[in-house]
Amino acid sequence: MNKITSTSNAKVKRLVNLKKKRRARDEEKVFLVEGIRMFREAPKEILNEVYVSESFYKKERSVADDLLASFEVLSDTVFDYVSDTRTPQGILCVAKQMEYTLDTVEGGDKPHIVVLDRLQDPGNLGTIFRTAEGAGVTGIIMDRECVDIYNPKTIRSTMGSIYRMPFCYAANLADAISFLKERGIRTYAAHLEGARDYDEEDYCRPCAFLIGNEGNGLTKEIADLADNYIKIPMKGQVESLNAAIAASVLMFEAARQRRTMSDRIVY
Amino acid sequence: MNKITSTSNAKVKRLVNLKKKRRARDEEKVFLVEGIRMFREAPKEILNEVYVSESFYKKERSVADDLLASFEVLSDTVFDYVSDTRTPQGILCVAKQMEYTLDTVEGGDKPHIVVLDRLQDPGNLGTIFRTAEGAGVTGIIMDRECVDIYNPKTIRSTMGSIYRMPFCYAANLADAISFLKERGIRTYAAHLEGARDYDEEDYCRPCAFLIGNEGNGLTKEIADLADNYIKIPMKGQVESLNAAIAASVLMFEAARQRRTMSDRIVY
Repeated sequence: MNKITSTSNAKVKRLVNLKKKRRARDEEKVFLVEGIRMFREAPKEILNEVYVSESFYKKERSVADDLLASFEVLSDTVFDYVSDTRTPQGILCVAKQMEYTLDTVEGGDKPHIVVLDRLQDPGNLGTIFRTAEGAGVTGIIMDRECVDIYNPKTIRSTMGSIYRMPFCYAANLADAISFLKERGIRTYAAHLEGARDYDEEDYCRPCAFLIGNEGNGLTKEIADLADNYIKIPMKGQVESLNAAIAASVLMFEAARQRRTMSDRIVY
Repeated sequence: MNKITSTSNAKVKRLVNLKKKRRARDEEKVFLVEGIRMFREAPKEILNEVYVSESFYKKERSVADDLLASFEVLSDTVFDYVSDTRTPQGILCVAKQMEYTLDTVEGGDKPHIVVLDRLQDPGNLGTIFRTAEGAGVTGIIMDRECVDIYNPKTIRSTMGSIYRMPFCYAANLADAISFLKERGIRTYAAHLEGARDYDEEDYCRPCAFLIGNEGNGLTKEIADLADNYIKIPMKGQVESLNAAIAASVLMFEAARQRRTMSDRIVY
């Protein structure tokens, strides 16, 4: 068995670059996925390269030989060095970045879209992807100042939804919102000045939720473009919710309406 | 101005211990709160001690002299050393731990309770406290294996809700659940085997939501005690939601029902 044992190996340096730098990922149009589950769920056509740790190779040899047409082995020390987790599972892949257009993200006949304005927390972004898939969101649009969806921590928090949730980075978020509005998609901004509570609107129609930055909410320019301001009514002294939580409450309200409007007794 | 300039100062060592060790916090029955906002929102009667950085003292001298009956100054280096954040704001307090009983947590005539079973992520726990206050939750019950609510990262993520949300650690979670049931509070377990969707139950009545561990969900023993299993219906290939997200969807569904049952058109 050949294995890479030095952290100064050129392949290792490249993997570390892909882990750490958005620019490196974007230049090669790839990203890293780590762990058995993320490996198993990956569409095979996007997997460019697979790396396993020596321990993984020894323990899971049959799995490895079976599953992987070709892979390289890294010594455990080198694997730990390239891994983004504290207790690496021993398998890491270089995958092709997704390529969606605004049209794909729009989502056909029942659009249910999330628009993210300068979201900064990698874990929040991943959690929004995961929750969005569960809530039946058809696509996610982000501006260029959002944290990188291909950040390893974000990828991990998506729990595999990265493979299935259409998304795109808009060069200009205002233009993307106009695009949605021209197609009859109603845009709702979660906003402290919302006149109506979020559950008073009808989300069975095509809809898009605009979600702002963790610290400062939506940019005024973006909030101004929304068809409606909605508010999540708050008890106690809470002024706002975490961005991922606010997005989740809205996405699942839309999901609830879309289910219950057809065949349910509504409490 | 006297200031502490050495990290080997006994007071500094104690602060670091209080930052890092649950046992140290529990022995003294105190916790640390950091930052201007967390300081301002703290009920004055729980603030035992206040420490400020030298820069904070110089810049905010009037504020400091005004607000603080007594405080100690730490050199900036020492302050950075005791701080739990990367960019410390320069103010840190030692506060008394809260003391609630199960009776306080039960929440009077309209109980809306969250029960957490072995929750492990400090950020998730803090976010649940913040969201719970916003959703009008009356109290939170945790088992002893849950992460410490007084963990500095958790305190930070509560965004001040730690001061206002009644909670307790139950020596025995099963006993605590029996206590709730005896008082006519219906217990709902978010569970993959839920027969009914979460929005088909009536949460205008006294209710408690049982939320499990991030990786494994509820312990079987605890899930078995629930009056009802409910499920959050999921699209795509998503098997479960992040614990804080699942809790938030349920808490805000209860809040929505409690608002809309009285005076609203329900879609």
